[in-house]
Amino acid sequence: MSRWEPNTRERLLDAALELFGERGYDNVTVAEITERAGLTKRTFFRHFTDKREVLFAGQEFLSRVFADAIAAAPEPATPAAAVGRALAAAAAEFGPERQARGRRIRAVVADHRDLHERELLKRATLNAAMAGALRERGVPDPAAELAAEIGGLAFSTAFRRWTEPGNEREFAVLAAEALAELVAATATLD
Amino acid sequence: MSRWEPNTRERLLDAALELFGERGYDNVTVAEITERAGLTKRTFFRHFTDKREVLFAGQEFLSRVFADAIAAAPEPATPAAAVGRALAAAAAEFGPERQARGRRIRAVVADHRDLHERELLKRATLNAAMAGALRERGVPDPAAELAAEIGGLAFSTAFRRWTEPGNEREFAVLAAEALAELVAATATLD
Repeated sequence: MSRWEPNTRERLLDAALELFGERGYDNVTVAEITERAGLTKRTFFRHFTDKREVLFAGQEFLSRVFADAIAAAPEPATPAAAVGRALAAAAAEFGPERQARGRRIRAVVADHRDLHERELLKRATLNAAMAGALRERGVPDPAAELAAEIGGLAFSTAFRRWTEPGNEREFAVLAAEALAELVAATATLD
Repeated sequence: MSRWEPNTRERLLDAALELFGERGYDNVTVAEITERAGLTKRTFFRHFTDKREVLFAGQEFLSRVFADAIAAAPEPATPAAAVGRALAAAAAEFGPERQARGRRIRAVVADHRDLHERELLKRATLNAAMAGALRERGVPDPAAELAAEIGGLAFSTAFRRWTEPGNEREFAVLAAEALAELVAATATLD
């Protein structure tokens, strides 16, 4: 299986985003998405359980990127450094050619409560993947859970800043900056 | 409006939990819940938008408890201390008479992905309420966001431990302990 399965998952995502932009998320069917993508409904449902899922096409892949990067961080690495590796590895998936798509996904999700719920679930899955990889490295709880949560916050913040209108900074820079801000903030809590 | 509107919201929740226990969540209708509670469907929908919501009956109230306690924390209080106040205030809602109900809610939610999603949304709402109250106190971001996230983790951990079979420790104790563990863990991240 290739990274994002560009010939199916990405095609379906891009067809969906086109249609959502034209008619609004609620007025688009799976059949219309597959038709626009030049694929069958059967193909759609081999990849996604429902229309919502297509918007989060890359998230499972991203969970593996995060977990693999944490596992591969050189010893000794602090939990924050290992999480930094995860974000840096993820940044490879957020190149300038994906920024317009990121903005469109963000706009659709912001408008729909059930999509926002699904996004929270995906983010929780990402965090769980990071926490699991940190535990594998011997990071005890709750430090593993906390470092993963901070990684998730840094990721969300970086994605938000990266997709803001007019932003020209790279995802990798934004993610490293958001993580550093959060780690610095831990010293101000008590 | 009383705290949990015990004569309606709690009655509906308890009727729902009874029925879910007897037949399983998927096999129970709103009509059956209202009949068991001796109330009308109209009353149900005045309080909840759907069947899922009844399981999270206390969450909006809890958001206010959290935010009010943070606002009322004596100056100067560190962000962690203010969050500790929020958890202590919430503990008043988790007395021994509510423990059996908490266990039943937890069991139903654990079995259903869509309920788990809704729970994540509710937890995100709680965290947002805490973060907002911390900002009102002048805590800057990302410290406000981070302290709220830690408060949410402490709350989830405490709720999980409190509803574990055989647990006899009080929610307030478990929440304070979970928060202290998380704050201590911040020093081990980098």
